[in-house]
Amino acid sequence: MRAAFVVGTTETARIDGISAAGAAPDVMNHTPAADAELVTYGRPVFAPEVPVSPTGCPTPSLVTRAAFDRLDVETMVVDAGLSVPTAAPAVTVGAEVGGDVREAVPVPDAESAFERGRSLGAALGEDALLIGESIPGGTTTAMGVLTALGEPNDVSSSLPENPLERKREIVSTGLEASDVEPGALAGQPLAAVEGMGDPVLATVAGLIAGATSNGTAVTLAGGSQMVAAAALARHAGVDAPLRLATTSFVAADETFDVRAGADALDLSLAVTDPGFDRGDHVAFERYRQGEAKEGVGMGGALWLAERAGVSMADVRDGVREYYDRLVGDDGP
Amino acid sequence: MRAAFVVGTTETARIDGISAAGAAPDVMNHTPAADAELVTYGRPVFAPEVPVSPTGCPTPSLVTRAAFDRLDVETMVVDAGLSVPTAAPAVTVGAEVGGDVREAVPVPDAESAFERGRSLGAALGEDALLIGESIPGGTTTAMGVLTALGEPNDVSSSLPENPLERKREIVSTGLEASDVEPGALAGQPLAAVEGMGDPVLATVAGLIAGATSNGTAVTLAGGSQMVAAAALARHAGVDAPLRLATTSFVAADETFDVRAGADALDLSLAVTDPGFDRGDHVAFERYRQGEAKEGVGMGGALWLAERAGVSMADVRDGVREYYDRLVGDDGP
Repeated sequence: MRAAFVVGTTETARIDGISAAGAAPDVMNHTPAADAELVTYGRPVFAPEVPVSPTGCPTPSLVTRAAFDRLDVETMVVDAGLSVPTAAPAVTVGAEVGGDVREAVPVPDAESAFERGRSLGAALGEDALLIGESIPGGTTTAMGVLTALGEPNDVSSSLPENPLERKREIVSTGLEASDVEPGALAGQPLAAVEGMGDPVLATVAGLIAGATSNGTAVTLAGGSQMVAAAALARHAGVDAPLRLATTSFVAADETFDVRAGADALDLSLAVTDPGFDRGDHVAFERYRQGEAKEGVGMGGALWLAERAGVSMADVRDGVREYYDRLVGDDGP
Repeated sequence: MRAAFVVGTTETARIDGISAAGAAPDVMNHTPAADAELVTYGRPVFAPEVPVSPTGCPTPSLVTRAAFDRLDVETMVVDAGLSVPTAAPAVTVGAEVGGDVREAVPVPDAESAFERGRSLGAALGEDALLIGESIPGGTTTAMGVLTALGEPNDVSSSLPENPLERKREIVSTGLEASDVEPGALAGQPLAAVEGMGDPVLATVAGLIAGATSNGTAVTLAGGSQMVAAAALARHAGVDAPLRLATTSFVAADETFDVRAGADALDLSLAVTDPGFDRGDHVAFERYRQGEAKEGVGMGGALWLAERAGVSMADVRDGVREYYDRLVGDDGP
């Protein structure tokens, strides 16, 4: 089993109020690179610190890493538009930082990112591949892509209060700038991600297409963004079975019906509950409040752990250890 | 223990008759990327094939990987100027493909490559780091750097007949183009590698400086090129203990005195013999004829294996298996 983490950034993430992945926009730029280091090394290397939201919610990459420490999974990072250097070895797909989705063409290199992702997914020739992501503002671009493709387009949020109306306004502005009606790009996934998406979505869609073409069993580890990536793959003609593995926090989100999204795209759905309501460590508190919810493959890593007979209590111990060692009492 | 493989390419490698690392220049361009994939995955992924010299000598990365399969070593790849995409996850130092050493400034980004290497070496914070390389034409740029620094400047060769005179001519032309007298750049390692080296040497020197600054024990796995990298580090003020781990093929090279090189730079020397004279598999024949000799960390991997009690017979079995599976009977 190999797990690929596709990481990148966009100008969309700089739009006020849409993401909790890090604090201020300048800090948020570091989040995907830091997540790449955390899943690779279990600690920040070039990154100045572990990403923690303004309210103190630690990045889900700590959960993913804690689960992987207890499993036999080879990890790899795919750079799909990082804006700062990372010390995590990464396969690059040559994508630039994504633009603002309110522009006409926020992802001019969508096609090459998709193709490089496809080559990689096919060439790896794994039996099974789990795909995670880290890209701030990613649910907004996910909504953009889903809307352009004409799929159910509600999305989840890394914030406890999902700013859905704000996202809809942004997507609406983006559609206008791209001169696209909702649903007009059905069957045209590259145009949809080029005009309304981000480079991570383009790359994940390519990975799915390439891996499934070679018989690899693909598990998409995440929530709305992985639904959007699956939609792109389906619209690109991928009809292989796909699994969506997400967290109980996403499944509990009243603003986003992950089951409906999975059904619409014929994804088998696995929901795993890490049991953060047991134990009152600070690392779990913000998750209980509905923050973060998912990301950096968290839902997939938990699913793998559960399937391998690793107890959630054991994973929680690992998360506590990482938090205490790397974040400590410096939170707000 | 972590092993970092610094890989790159130069225009110098296109000069006729100086390297056996691959066949024609266009094929040679693929060698470092293929080596990166072989040490990472144990097989070519994007690379069209396993690098094999025109006479049928397989890349030493097969030996390195066979040894690592029997050890507990984390590998990583550092991209210091690859000219083709690789499927191996890599930390990039942002270096362009190196120019021709006969030009005035073949490595304009030497300083930034050194600095990024230094940051990485320091940030990794490993107890022990083994460094290998893959860059065709690397012994010629090694000679260039050693000459500019005023160190003993004979070098080994991946060819059975070392074209030393050809290399001296090339270096002489390069010194003239760079307007440098032999020894004139003593104490100026960045100027030496910028004017007479390659991006891999700049990066390895930076890694050495950074890693040793943080107390990491550094083993340079290779021959002449690692002597040149050590020379750059010494001239940059690194006085920490350094080990050079190379193969018996390099130690037996009558045209290059690796012991003198190690002594001049205060490197402790470990020489390991993989016993390729036992067993008559085709994979070993060209090594016995003096081809390849070293590369992609081979000497260091063999040294680690020997130190860990892994028998050379076991490593040879692994090399045979890789060769039979990946190269087969397609050799000349």
